Amino acid sequence: MSLPISEHILALRPYQPGKPIDEVKRELGLTDVVKLASNENPLGPSPLAAEAIAACAHGVSIYPDGNAPALRAAVSELVSMPPNTLVFGNGSDEILHLLTMTFLQPGEETVQADPSFAMYEIYAAQANAKIHRVPLTHYTHNLEAMADAITPGTRLLFIANPNNPTGTLVTQAEVDRFMERVPPHVLVVFDEAYDEYVSHADKPDMRPYVRDDRNVIILRTFSKAYGLAGLRVGYGIAPPRIAELLNRVRSPFNVNLIGQAAAAAGVVDQEHIRRAVALNYEGRDYYYREFQRLGLEFIPSEANFVCVDVKRDSKEVFEALQRLGVIVRAGAGLGLPTHIRVTVGTMAQNERFIAALTAVLES
Amino acid sequence: MSLPISEHILALRPYQPGKPIDEVKRELGLTDVVKLASNENPLGPSPLAAEAIAACAHGVSIYPDGNAPALRAAVSELVSMPPNTLVFGNGSDEILHLLTMTFLQPGEETVQADPSFAMYEIYAAQANAKIHRVPLTHYTHNLEAMADAITPGTRLLFIANPNNPTGTLVTQAEVDRFMERVPPHVLVVFDEAYDEYVSHADKPDMRPYVRDDRNVIILRTFSKAYGLAGLRVGYGIAPPRIAELLNRVRSPFNVNLIGQAAAAAGVVDQEHIRRAVALNYEGRDYYYREFQRLGLEFIPSEANFVCVDVKRDSKEVFEALQRLGVIVRAGAGLGLPTHIRVTVGTMAQNERFIAALTAVLES
Repeated sequence: MSLPISEHILALRPYQPGKPIDEVKRELGLTDVVKLASNENPLGPSPLAAEAIAACAHGVSIYPDGNAPALRAAVSELVSMPPNTLVFGNGSDEILHLLTMTFLQPGEETVQADPSFAMYEIYAAQANAKIHRVPLTHYTHNLEAMADAITPGTRLLFIANPNNPTGTLVTQAEVDRFMERVPPHVLVVFDEAYDEYVSHADKPDMRPYVRDDRNVIILRTFSKAYGLAGLRVGYGIAPPRIAELLNRVRSPFNVNLIGQAAAAAGVVDQEHIRRAVALNYEGRDYYYREFQRLGLEFIPSEANFVCVDVKRDSKEVFEALQRLGVIVRAGAGLGLPTHIRVTVGTMAQNERFIAALTAVLES
Repeated sequence: MSLPISEHILALRPYQPGKPIDEVKRELGLTDVVKLASNENPLGPSPLAAEAIAACAHGVSIYPDGNAPALRAAVSELVSMPPNTLVFGNGSDEILHLLTMTFLQPGEETVQADPSFAMYEIYAAQANAKIHRVPLTHYTHNLEAMADAITPGTRLLFIANPNNPTGTLVTQAEVDRFMERVPPHVLVVFDEAYDEYVSHADKPDMRPYVRDDRNVIILRTFSKAYGLAGLRVGYGIAPPRIAELLNRVRSPFNVNLIGQAAAAAGVVDQEHIRRAVALNYEGRDYYYREFQRLGLEFIPSEANFVCVDVKRDSKEVFEALQRLGVIVRAGAGLGLPTHIRVTVGTMAQNERFIAALTAVLES
């Protein structure tokens, strides 16, 4: 009964997420496990968001409003952009998917850094597109080389800023030079999932490009600083002609009702974001000091995670840490074979990770 | 700055959902509005599901487990099928989308009834497929004609059972005859979104076809009888080789964490389903009696909605009802120009609808 299935579908390799805590506990017989693998907010969601969730509990029999009017109004004010520049998704993941569905036909091309966020190539491969991977330079996007990689067939170009998994930033000056070289047949995707954590003085603001009706979309998420990863809410900011197309392609009820309510409530609580960011800086600086003490090179990060070179097979270090109840990400799966990527958690979690890492490296 | 965009994307026409209550209130200056447009459960979710939602409120900073292990175990027991036959989606909508992404390449073909659920053609059009629409006979799927419509290019064939918008069922005997005619290059999608409401003595059970490894997938949803439309959870039951492909194509965190928890809790409360179904039968019989009193022909329904022929332009009746604070669906947008489709609500809602309809038809 074999169905005819396209070769490019059979060749797909799914995203490998960080292991869930429950699974690690079960597999290793552990009771106390810390997950620093998925760059989640260790403070959890804003109490206002949690209240909004509980308030929705009996109201979930109704379909969500696909236009997300309350969330749209809140985000519009937050980012100072008109409501018709916004498109909401089931996580910013889904915006990436909408982009490949809308703008990428079989045989057309994407440009992305290598390594960068894995979903860029997963969705491009689903679209049967040709993917150009441009190596990072000093762990950072090489925008000159990425502009060089654009061909007449290029449709989408992805810039994760800061980059995942390296945490590095391209600056406003670099981006401005790059944008001068982007031809009008290419849509540039600035994935700013870690935006709230960036402290760099020359952090780029891409909104003027959106206002100038350039072929640009900015992606943001409620999964990181807002602590709502479980609810799957992200959004894009793009010129209205681009946002309108994405809204036409998206499914009618793509963002769930509780996600919309919690995200709108989360926007109100900017003090929670400041607390999360302050905790992140404290933990990041602690990691830096401890890595130096351990003689390990790390990649200075503008995000809520740090990549550190453990100078060994990262899978072995990952597994040894897991046996001690600390889940991180092995760089092996992220294109950095001797690095591990660790989320900045609470100080107690950070100390537990450093103690475990110290033990693993001494063994 | 015009981006090159494929003609089939520019031609897409999005799904027109039922109007949200808040929007109708705002537009018409009404305070008391009843929505009987989207076939939602008027009892709301199970109290157990509501409890599960509230219990998650502070835990949403963690990504959902894409494998949905707790929900998978609950559904596996509910439907008496092995866990590896299941695939979960952001609503059964998303399973439809996964099916077109996985099995439909540009230029390949689908077969569906006309009218049937709108998303079949929306996702097929996104995939740039050729859509064969086979007219209903007596408002019911004409399975003989649908089998006749299969060509060597056909990949997916959709059967909504009961059908939406007509509420009609094809029986086991009819399906068995049909399945004998389906060639091995076609995957048959049995969309059983309204399964819980079906009372017909010869209701088909498609699980034996899944167990026999035929090219079949059964779709179910938590949006209707389970009262969880706002949380977007649906699933497919298919032979493992098909479920595995869909799981490979789906996004890693497609079903949100609260949706998974609420749905798993909802499965436990089958008494809530029985109450919803009993209320539905009571309201449906009431609608039938009132339609007869008004001299209106209706389509006997196996679901939680009824289509009634108002013998006028359905848009005008829809708008007149809306001005009286009752939202239904105009058949005009559903391929039935003089019908309206109305959800069975609470008895108070049903009586309000009948009173409004009586007033509109007398005016």
